[in-house]
Amino acid sequence: MKLKAAIVGASGYSGEELIRLLAGHPQVDLAAVTSRSLAGKPLIEQMPQFRGLVPADLCFTASDAEALTADASLDVIFLALPHGVAAEYAVTLVAAGKKVIDLSADFRLGCPKLYEEYYGKPHPEPELLEKAAYVIPEVTPDGWQSAPLIASPGCYPTSIITPLYPLLKNGIIKTTGIVANSLSGISGAGRKTAEHLLFAERAESVKAYGLPKHRHLSEIEEQLSDAAGESVVINFNPHLAPMRRGIASTITVPAAKPEIEALYSVWESAFEGRACVGILPTGQTPDTAHTVGTNRVDMSAVYDERTGNFVITSAEDNLVKGASGQAVQIMNLWFGLKETEGLF
Amino acid sequence: MKLKAAIVGASGYSGEELIRLLAGHPQVDLAAVTSRSLAGKPLIEQMPQFRGLVPADLCFTASDAEALTADASLDVIFLALPHGVAAEYAVTLVAAGKKVIDLSADFRLGCPKLYEEYYGKPHPEPELLEKAAYVIPEVTPDGWQSAPLIASPGCYPTSIITPLYPLLKNGIIKTTGIVANSLSGISGAGRKTAEHLLFAERAESVKAYGLPKHRHLSEIEEQLSDAAGESVVINFNPHLAPMRRGIASTITVPAAKPEIEALYSVWESAFEGRACVGILPTGQTPDTAHTVGTNRVDMSAVYDERTGNFVITSAEDNLVKGASGQAVQIMNLWFGLKETEGLF
Amino acid sequence: MKLKAAIVGASGYSGEELIRLLAGHPQVDLAAVTSRSLAGKPLIEQMPQFRGLVPADLCFTASDAEALTADASLDVIFLALPHGVAAEYAVTLVAAGKKVIDLSADFRLGCPKLYEEYYGKPHPEPELLEKAAYVIPEVTPDGWQSAPLIASPGCYPTSIITPLYPLLKNGIIKTTGIVANSLSGISGAGRKTAEHLLFAERAESVKAYGLPKHRHLSEIEEQLSDAAGESVVINFNPHLAPMRRGIASTITVPAAKPEIEALYSVWESAFEGRACVGILPTGQTPDTAHTVGTNRVDMSAVYDERTGNFVITSAEDNLVKGASGQAVQIMNLWFGLKETEGLF
Amino acid sequence: MKLKAAIVGASGYSGEELIRLLAGHPQVDLAAVTSRSLAGKPLIEQMPQFRGLVPADLCFTASDAEALTADASLDVIFLALPHGVAAEYAVTLVAAGKKVIDLSADFRLGCPKLYEEYYGKPHPEPELLEKAAYVIPEVTPDGWQSAPLIASPGCYPTSIITPLYPLLKNGIIKTTGIVANSLSGISGAGRKTAEHLLFAERAESVKAYGLPKHRHLSEIEEQLSDAAGESVVINFNPHLAPMRRGIASTITVPAAKPEIEALYSVWESAFEGRACVGILPTGQTPDTAHTVGTNRVDMSAVYDERTGNFVITSAEDNLVKGASGQAVQIMNLWFGLKETEGLF
Repeated sequence: MKLKAAIVGASGYSGEELIRLLAGHPQVDLAAVTSRSLAGKPLIEQMPQFRGLVPADLCFTASDAEALTADASLDVIFLALPHGVAAEYAVTLVAAGKKVIDLSADFRLGCPKLYEEYYGKPHPEPELLEKAAYVIPEVTPDGWQSAPLIASPGCYPTSIITPLYPLLKNGIIKTTGIVANSLSGISGAGRKTAEHLLFAERAESVKAYGLPKHRHLSEIEEQLSDAAGESVVINFNPHLAPMRRGIASTITVPAAKPEIEALYSVWESAFEGRACVGILPTGQTPDTAHTVGTNRVDMSAVYDERTGNFVITSAEDNLVKGASGQAVQIMNLWFGLKETEGLF
Repeated sequence: MKLKAAIVGASGYSGEELIRLLAGHPQVDLAAVTSRSLAGKPLIEQMPQFRGLVPADLCFTASDAEALTADASLDVIFLALPHGVAAEYAVTLVAAGKKVIDLSADFRLGCPKLYEEYYGKPHPEPELLEKAAYVIPEVTPDGWQSAPLIASPGCYPTSIITPLYPLLKNGIIKTTGIVANSLSGISGAGRKTAEHLLFAERAESVKAYGLPKHRHLSEIEEQLSDAAGESVVINFNPHLAPMRRGIASTITVPAAKPEIEALYSVWESAFEGRACVGILPTGQTPDTAHTVGTNRVDMSAVYDERTGNFVITSAEDNLVKGASGQAVQIMNLWFGLKETEGLF
Repeated sequence: MKLKAAIVGASGYSGEELIRLLAGHPQVDLAAVTSRSLAGKPLIEQMPQFRGLVPADLCFTASDAEALTADASLDVIFLALPHGVAAEYAVTLVAAGKKVIDLSADFRLGCPKLYEEYYGKPHPEPELLEKAAYVIPEVTPDGWQSAPLIASPGCYPTSIITPLYPLLKNGIIKTTGIVANSLSGISGAGRKTAEHLLFAERAESVKAYGLPKHRHLSEIEEQLSDAAGESVVINFNPHLAPMRRGIASTITVPAAKPEIEALYSVWESAFEGRACVGILPTGQTPDTAHTVGTNRVDMSAVYDERTGNFVITSAEDNLVKGASGQAVQIMNLWFGLKETEGLF
Repeated sequence: MKLKAAIVGASGYSGEELIRLLAGHPQVDLAAVTSRSLAGKPLIEQMPQFRGLVPADLCFTASDAEALTADASLDVIFLALPHGVAAEYAVTLVAAGKKVIDLSADFRLGCPKLYEEYYGKPHPEPELLEKAAYVIPEVTPDGWQSAPLIASPGCYPTSIITPLYPLLKNGIIKTTGIVANSLSGISGAGRKTAEHLLFAERAESVKAYGLPKHRHLSEIEEQLSDAAGESVVINFNPHLAPMRRGIASTITVPAAKPEIEALYSVWESAFEGRACVGILPTGQTPDTAHTVGTNRVDMSAVYDERTGNFVITSAEDNLVKGASGQAVQIMNLWFGLKETEGLF
């Protein structure tokens, strides 16, 4: 029997990508897509790209938490809501016993104080925060499956935490002096009608932003600190690049064990059998174009003997492995399906 | 009276940009453009973008060093030849008393051994190398004007050396732990018909390359070492981004004097009156789109008290301030013209 | 039991897209991918985007027609070879009883003289040409299934023939005065290392080409004439636009029956139940971005009472519905599978 | 002595381009730039691309018509205001004896009824409309110089009217059956924060819009009818293409005199000595990339003997020859300067 799934807040880019993935998923029945602004409208009118993929009569419904809790047949609910809005829905849904996968930033941090520091207000639901699990399936230790809510990681964090986590855990790299530069396609900024996101502004433009304390930094450092067993503080320099999708991260990090073979050996063991991680040989750098539409994060590394640093490069589709694909991967594992079902 | 100028090897992107700048320069008469492959062909047939700007009867001529030396009226010769080819022309032209501005990498390094290390063969003309001057007009100490040949800097180096040079000289930043990430538009790779430079390969793609020892690293480190008065070794991570023009560099560098005001104060004093450098306030990052077509390198910085690093960002047009515009700026100064003549 | 399929000439963009579609097809076993230039190399080394999708040990093999005929288990062979090369392979394979789907232009025209006129040489295999069928599944009359070789249509033709065919057949539009303007993403030009296909040449560029007799014109007119039952001669103006994928066609055509409802009524009846055609309401124009990655051609029309013309617009992914997706759609129908299997 | 110029409404793309052109114009002193939203702010803070080009202390001022009329030293005022807003300013300024060049659509049509049909309301200033002149310098008959206000043409119209005007006037083409397809870069839609103009929506997208009666159609047909001496009704199909700048028009038009030499002969005579028109040989199509940043419209034509149509192609920079550059060209001629001053 198929899983019945709902997407709450399906009008943004993550929501749209969730529709694509869940509507095409052989083990999922996409039962409801909600949107405050589009309620009542046929989905394929708003998103003509899905003609032929979703039923012609599927309409957006209101984003009504009560209605969702009332539907006993719903197995899993994805929240693709703005940060801050998700928490409120999550509490109601979890209280009603629903399994929730939240793509917002609301439950990504373990520490409520860190949330307040980076988001400028106290966490709205600290009790639920404590029970929620943050999951990058390839690195998060087992046990997360019993949480009532899974926080699906951010796009930048996935591309940085995934390659670094096992290296920190295994003492291959140092915990200080890490510099991560990331470039994101413009869809990473969401479907916001802001002047700086217009085509005519972003085409032919590369620009750093959010220096030196982008919000995703909190999530990255908390996870890296977990991996290292000590506090890890890094520089994180995000940029916008003129493409629709994709994140490329280039991480310069002092080697603790300055052998490229040792690094690769840790990666190969950590990611053995994981189809959503691609390990490229040293000297061959990942390309965002090769990850577009896939749920894979590719990674590679070189050792620079002149500086004693590793330079680690990674690439992913910000909307798939960096958001909605990873959320589906989490669902697959949470419900005992094959990890890559509906994704490859 | 106008300067008479020739461009040798005008079929590539730098050559093309030199044509645009010199043909529109109020103090220059573009007397000759040479190209081995296009000799005999009318310029505007090959480069229709210059209709109306250059005389309709201007044709490419053969790249013949003898003919150029024979033309006594030529005041300045720009070499926009491939690396390795330029040196040979340069020797002949300089021997004949011509003033030469070389846009290739052949005379950018002071040290012949460094050249051999990075270019894989002994320097072809070490004697001329010794006399040549490497000039970023805003940072190179006075005295270069007496050299017979000026090496115009590379695109990446200009975006990194310009902001760092005065900071190293004035002890604002440390000489170790510098990490420079750069993103270049695809024209930076030249007009080469390589598969990886096709539109369908590079659109929607960001990718690091040349790790960890891109050739421009040698030029960057030599200049930074000059500024610091000691050996500076850095990480330099270049990337291709899907735009035609532009370089954005983001440089993470440990602060020696951890005050953002001190950094800005050095910049303001170093670049006072220099129209080709734009200093943006802290917190406002430069955008490659704002430099397209201009001969300006924009820069900005923030201090990250968490890591003790400055994050310095810069942006320029790789073909203008990063190549041909800077060459014209050098010409202007060398011949006593206004620095920005024909450039703003 | 799954179909065993081979792709001959898998190194170009159509071949690459076939790999994506066939490797992910639930009813297909991708048994062989051949390439003269890549023979012996692991597929995922050359095409890292397929890591996780194809077996890690799948290698390109030589494009050897004998070996393919010798493999009795192969059910279907896709030819993604250059025009002219495909015919030779096709003859050998068909002679050995293989079912062949040819993505080249070699068997698209019914008339050998037309082939000679447009391709500049006599058709190499006129006997096989006579037996081959040209198939756009939504418009080609039944009976094609018995042909030994199916010619999969060109990218431009699919976007023009599909909307016009039923309109001509039903007398909605006139047969003279048709003007078709098409815009193609750069991948439509193939993976050729030509200067005009470089990123730095095509970005920020729109340009018509191939006027007035692009090769695809022959295929378009032959099909439209079949539909109309009389000779149809049109203007076809192709352009390159700065995107990787996608074709948009805008066709201005004199109305025979000047009622937009009549036009839509014919379309709705002709395409009823066909998931690979999307009919958008009048006034809402199709967008190539909405077809990227899908096997759908979207279409719409308005009536201009001032000129008495319909303006018909269509959009598709040139590599999917315009090439490899349509080939898979043909395979599905040929082998009795669901038309959209592996495509939605 | 330099002309003193003001730009009213300088915050949009046309205004920005006017700043670039007028600030760099050797015969112009850019005395004022106004903007309701940016009044009081330093120009280079809002538009960092102009650092080094405009004085650092130049600030936007309020868009106050009274203040502009009070400044007796102002020679020419450019209106880069939204359609509908410009008319009001124009009346005040003209009444005060100022010479006005209006880049909006408010005074482009000779016929107030046509204005009402296309703009949905009566023309606000029909008296001034009668006195205003619409000027494409290369085709508009002499005499316009005495008008108090010049309407600078729209971007699409310039690319279509310029090549067709002399052909209609000289009976080379027919007046019926004309089909014009145009593609515009996204800046043509203005700096509007609309969802469909976001980078993530427009990248990888080509889409027709405004069918069948885009507002520019009125302006195009009125001018073509003037040229032909009879009413000309055409199909005009505009599209957005994923580039910042540029318009490419492809016009299929029945030949009255079916000789390509006759067509070229008319063009050569009509555009003799006009540097802002580029005539390319038949078979070589213009490329928007070759016009970026220039004030040139390039054109070419082929004759298709199969259909009896000419296919005429043109390309321009929508913000330069299609807007601000042409406005400066008009100013040059109006004030007796060299036509190309400050433009090449």
